[in-house]
Amino acid sequence: MQAVVDFILELDRLKQVTRKIRVRGTERYENPAEHSWQIAMLALSLAPCAAEPVDADRVVRMLLVHDVGEIDAGDAFFFAEGDAQARTAAERAAAARIFGLLPAPQAASLLALWDEFETGASAEARFAHAADRAMPVLLNLANAGQSWRDNGVSHAQVVGRLAGPIRAGCPALWDYLEGRLDEARRNGWFGA
Amino acid sequence: MQAVVDFILELDRLKQVTRKIRVRGTERYENPAEHSWQIAMLALSLAPCAAEPVDADRVVRMLLVHDVGEIDAGDAFFFAEGDAQARTAAERAAAARIFGLLPAPQAASLLALWDEFETGASAEARFAHAADRAMPVLLNLANAGQSWRDNGVSHAQVVGRLAGPIRAGCPALWDYLEGRLDEARRNGWFGA
Ligand SMILES: [Ca+2]
Repeated sequence: MQAVVDFILELDRLKQVTRKIRVRGTERYENPAEHSWQIAMLALSLAPCAAEPVDADRVVRMLLVHDVGEIDAGDAFFFAEGDAQARTAAERAAAARIFGLLPAPQAASLLALWDEFETGASAEARFAHAADRAMPVLLNLANAGQSWRDNGVSHAQVVGRLAGPIRAGCPALWDYLEGRLDEARRNGWFGA
Repeated sequence: MQAVVDFILELDRLKQVTRKIRVRGTERYENPAEHSWQIAMLALSLAPCAAEPVDADRVVRMLLVHDVGEIDAGDAFFFAEGDAQARTAAERAAAARIFGLLPAPQAASLLALWDEFETGASAEARFAHAADRAMPVLLNLANAGQSWRDNGVSHAQVVGRLAGPIRAGCPALWDYLEGRLDEARRNGWFGA
């Protein structure tokens, strides 16, 4: 039992990591723990629109664990420059360390989920990526582009980086976002 | 698609509700969104110790939705006095309103999960209760009893209210907590 307790208290630290989006109606930056909850709910709600048939429960598990590596590595802003490979290696080492607090079979199964998300090598992982990538867009669309304006992110960057993965996981979601992003550009909600 | 977007933005408000426990290492009170994520992870980790065989994925879904009613009703401190029946009715009305933003079949299935948790009428619900009730205990044990001391909660109250549901869902977890709670009493970590 102590192993599970050590694990869950280590996970607690994810509540202290900050992302770039402020929680609506507050000055506080959201953290990856509440973000993980929200995208799990988004995936459950969107499952009927997935590009391929998916096991929604596996998608949820994947989304719940996918940010755990940020406990050691911090949040990397999606549009930041940087060595993506080194970044992924640091997050994976953190995930392995933290899941490794659990008994070996459970640790292995959580790390396998983490890897599956990271490599995007299944229908579930592709759909999970779509939910993860779309959520900050939806929040920015509800927030006059706060994190785009704060961080100098352009409409072209958002479309260029997100159209592929969101369309691959959930085409109807991208169709919806495309129009909303055009509207956001007309509103001046981008930072570059 | 707009229905899902309206739903997920309404859920965003759960990040603004405050519970009684401060996030370790900060002055901020945790919110039910990050709490829901953490207890979903706790349930996944504890599933091998459940009192009865459970479908861990249904437990996770239940835990992800169980606090949604607090968006309208706010968080009720577990040890507060008050009209529990009126409280539950208010939370259920909120849950029905919010899930009702989704298409009818999805709304019905989320509300059924919410009801199942609330009534505790399945092995999954009983196990989910154990995770939900145990998490603040684990955080208080790691936090010198902060929310117990702040709110005048006694060792007898914690044992009296929690032994039953935690033991019913996960006996090994209660066996562990019992000793830790005795130790916490010796440490003076209770508020009454
Ligand atoms: Ca609650």
